[in-house]
Amino acid sequence: MACALNSSGKYSSLLRTTPASWGRYAWSIGREDPRRAIHALKAGIALTLVSLLYILEPLFKGIGENAMWAVTTVVVVLEFTAGATICKRLNRGLGTIMAGSLAFLIELVAVKSGKVFRAFFVASAVFLIGFAATYLRFFPKIKKNYDYGVVIFLLTFNLITVSSFRQEEVVPLARDRLSTIAIGCAICMFMSLLVLPNWSGQNLHNCTVRKFDGLAKSIVACVDEYFREQEKDDEVLERQEARASIQIGYRAVLDSKSSDESLAHYASWEPRHSMHYYSYPSQKYVKLGSVLRHFACTIAALHGCLESEIQTPPHVRSLFRDPCTRVAREVAKVLQELAVSVRSHRRCAPDVLSDHLHEALQDLNSPIRSQPRLFLGSKHARATNSRMLMELNSAKNTAASRATLPSFKTDTTSLVERKSTKTDQPAAERNERTMLRPTLSKIAVTSLEFSEALPFAAFASLLVEMVVRLELVIEEVKNLESAANFREYSSHDHLV
Amino acid sequence: MACALNSSGKYSSLLRTTPASWGRYAWSIGREDPRRAIHALKAGIALTLVSLLYILEPLFKGIGENAMWAVTTVVVVLEFTAGATICKRLNRGLGTIMAGSLAFLIELVAVKSGKVFRAFFVASAVFLIGFAATYLRFFPKIKKNYDYGVVIFLLTFNLITVSSFRQEEVVPLARDRLSTIAIGCAICMFMSLLVLPNWSGQNLHNCTVRKFDGLAKSIVACVDEYFREQEKDDEVLERQEARASIQIGYRAVLDSKSSDESLAHYASWEPRHSMHYYSYPSQKYVKLGSVLRHFACTIAALHGCLESEIQTPPHVRSLFRDPCTRVAREVAKVLQELAVSVRSHRRCAPDVLSDHLHEALQDLNSPIRSQPRLFLGSKHARATNSRMLMELNSAKNTAASRATLPSFKTDTTSLVERKSTKTDQPAAERNERTMLRPTLSKIAVTSLEFSEALPFAAFASLLVEMVVRLELVIEEVKNLESAANFREYSSHDHLV
Repeated sequence: MACALNSSGKYSSLLRTTPASWGRYAWSIGREDPRRAIHALKAGIALTLVSLLYILEPLFKGIGENAMWAVTTVVVVLEFTAGATICKRLNRGLGTIMAGSLAFLIELVAVKSGKVFRAFFVASAVFLIGFAATYLRFFPKIKKNYDYGVVIFLLTFNLITVSSFRQEEVVPLARDRLSTIAIGCAICMFMSLLVLPNWSGQNLHNCTVRKFDGLAKSIVACVDEYFREQEKDDEVLERQEARASIQIGYRAVLDSKSSDESLAHYASWEPRHSMHYYSYPSQKYVKLGSVLRHFACTIAALHGCLESEIQTPPHVRSLFRDPCTRVAREVAKVLQELAVSVRSHRRCAPDVLSDHLHEALQDLNSPIRSQPRLFLGSKHARATNSRMLMELNSAKNTAASRATLPSFKTDTTSLVERKSTKTDQPAAERNERTMLRPTLSKIAVTSLEFSEALPFAAFASLLVEMVVRLELVIEEVKNLESAANFREYSSHDHLV
Repeated sequence: MACALNSSGKYSSLLRTTPASWGRYAWSIGREDPRRAIHALKAGIALTLVSLLYILEPLFKGIGENAMWAVTTVVVVLEFTAGATICKRLNRGLGTIMAGSLAFLIELVAVKSGKVFRAFFVASAVFLIGFAATYLRFFPKIKKNYDYGVVIFLLTFNLITVSSFRQEEVVPLARDRLSTIAIGCAICMFMSLLVLPNWSGQNLHNCTVRKFDGLAKSIVACVDEYFREQEKDDEVLERQEARASIQIGYRAVLDSKSSDESLAHYASWEPRHSMHYYSYPSQKYVKLGSVLRHFACTIAALHGCLESEIQTPPHVRSLFRDPCTRVAREVAKVLQELAVSVRSHRRCAPDVLSDHLHEALQDLNSPIRSQPRLFLGSKHARATNSRMLMELNSAKNTAASRATLPSFKTDTTSLVERKSTKTDQPAAERNERTMLRPTLSKIAVTSLEFSEALPFAAFASLLVEMVVRLELVIEEVKNLESAANFREYSSHDHLV
């Protein structure tokens, strides 16, 4: 550990921390996920093992300088999860063998010719293969699955071709190199598959469970925040924190695409290692991830309602506080139940979409229907109703209609806040904005003329949409359950 | 090119294509972005140059076997953009120098001791450094900026320490190795900075411009699709295509976070290469990217309205077709104007947020106000209004209220569609779902009891929200313009 601090000291100036706080930081990283420390230990042991090839006399006599290749292999191939290690090892193995064969073919042609022709021939082979392999890396499928293999291919091909130019015996060279690479790979495989392995599949499973929990927290926080009383001054900071915490859950889900896909890709290389699966259903997890992202989009939009410049006044909102909060809590409860059942590899209850949620939706329905006037916009609107319809049909001379609608019911606090924050900005930037200001405020006012209840309608509609999407999530969870062969649901589980 | 086909033939079985179609595919990748072919050519030339170190007799005499390190450097360091190459080269350089110094220190201690102690000392140094460096790679900041450097450090340290165990003269070895790595780096720098360079900054600039265009297309497609007439049978396919095309624009923006950040990271390493910037404002581009993602979330939510199971009936929607379409087109026009001005490195017009948009918003305002009855939910609602309010206050016995609200005005087609598609699924899966079905339809019906206009209210509210967020986008574009020193707007530009 002391050594870790030592070597990391190089970076401490970059991060502007004292060695002590850096040490605490290092410790916190390990405590967050102890598998990291274990992996680092494994890497240290693997490197020590491979360096024995040099250090121990009898081993060195057999292998010699080529032991270097085993060291390189261990440094480059040993990855955090077993699947990633296997995938890299195969890429490295394939790349090396292909490069070796190609280099051998070229050598066969070159060796029979004169020195000048040989030099020319080797140089042009290097150029062509270099061009082709680099170009190949732009192909999306190759880039996704075999990028590392192509780099290794290119590297090995060049090293063999070019170094064989000055050596006569290529075959023993290639054989020794391959055997040492095999030793390196064997050490990596041993460390990553047999000593406290980290499975990509398990990681993906845990990530999926965390997503459910995160989404549930986001929904509850978002709805609580929407119906919170107008803040007093001392609560502003607290409110900002609450708002920030909403994002964490759904953002993590929205950003999970690439990490899910790479985990699933690695997981598909892993041998069976769990009692739960016949074969690991990585694609089902990816599918569930995509449905969850779809679900998270609704939460993002709900959050957008919170951040919006146009707000339904708090007294109108508060009428709907209870039913909305109830729907949100029921949805969160369902998500948490799904999390528990996926975590413990058992099927979820058949009635997970409970009557409570149904009732909560009905309760939201009733007060919305009971408040028709809120959706009228202004009190004048009803009077101008028929005239407006005519104008809509003519659809041209709208200027007159605008003049007869002078009722501004606006929640202007947010606009005022925004303007006041701008005054402390540097003069150069403010200059920039004065050109924009007239237009900006004009648009803002226009928006705020809209029916007061419109923003709340959006909020309620998104809540309902969320329930509908929740069904899709449940459907996908059931698909996963049957593919992953989860154990049957029993009512005993529910009580626990 | 023939060779490219040859070597890529290894993968053709994986992709299940004929060589001819594979050739066409390769050609299309190059045509899509000719810089790819140019980069591949540059890589081929760089590799050929570096292999001359071996092939030409006088050069080989000077450098010898160490030329291998120059080859390795070129293969690993040469990247598509100049910034990425510089960043990797610095990482490699730093990693090598640090590893060399540390190995030298250890050697100083080890060389004075007996053989057994020396072996033990070297092995434990390898273990400790291996542990520390691997652990360091889990630190988020290190992982983001210096991951490659740490790998190189570990590789070089192990190779030097371990190989110096059998060699007496470490210093000349290190010196030769460093000088050949320097040759490799010099070739990479020459190829990537001086021969038809690809700048990360330029890539980031182009990506930003493309985002504006993509978003504009998404908005127009989304609104057009929302107000499209109910499809005839032969239009279903076309409609699906149109729906798919909506996603492309905003998805690309939503998924752009990591690529933006890495491009900006590389761009920050690049020297000044353009007349437009004093220093490249990479962070402004990242900020603009994040504001655009915020904007794209609204489009995602709009798209959600389209996909939603609960729909406002088409005859209600069609009342608002013209104003909504007009707002969408005006927003798209502003985005396209921003794209043009950013593309041509000039400031956008001060009146980019035009009166047209203002008028379009007013026109959307008027018909919404003119249709108060649509927001009433059911015709019974007004009658039950006062009673409902009482019930809301007591907030308990809602069962009675539900019984008195039998008016189902629902757009059930989507529900029917969904059910019919399910029947062609395999029996095993259907079995799974029968358990879910009763709950599912119960919820769906509940949702559809809501006021018909609620989903449209959400749609309209999101459109307005989009205009508000457009202002934030414009503000951020103006920030970028002043930071990147774009040339002033002149009315002449507008005419062109």
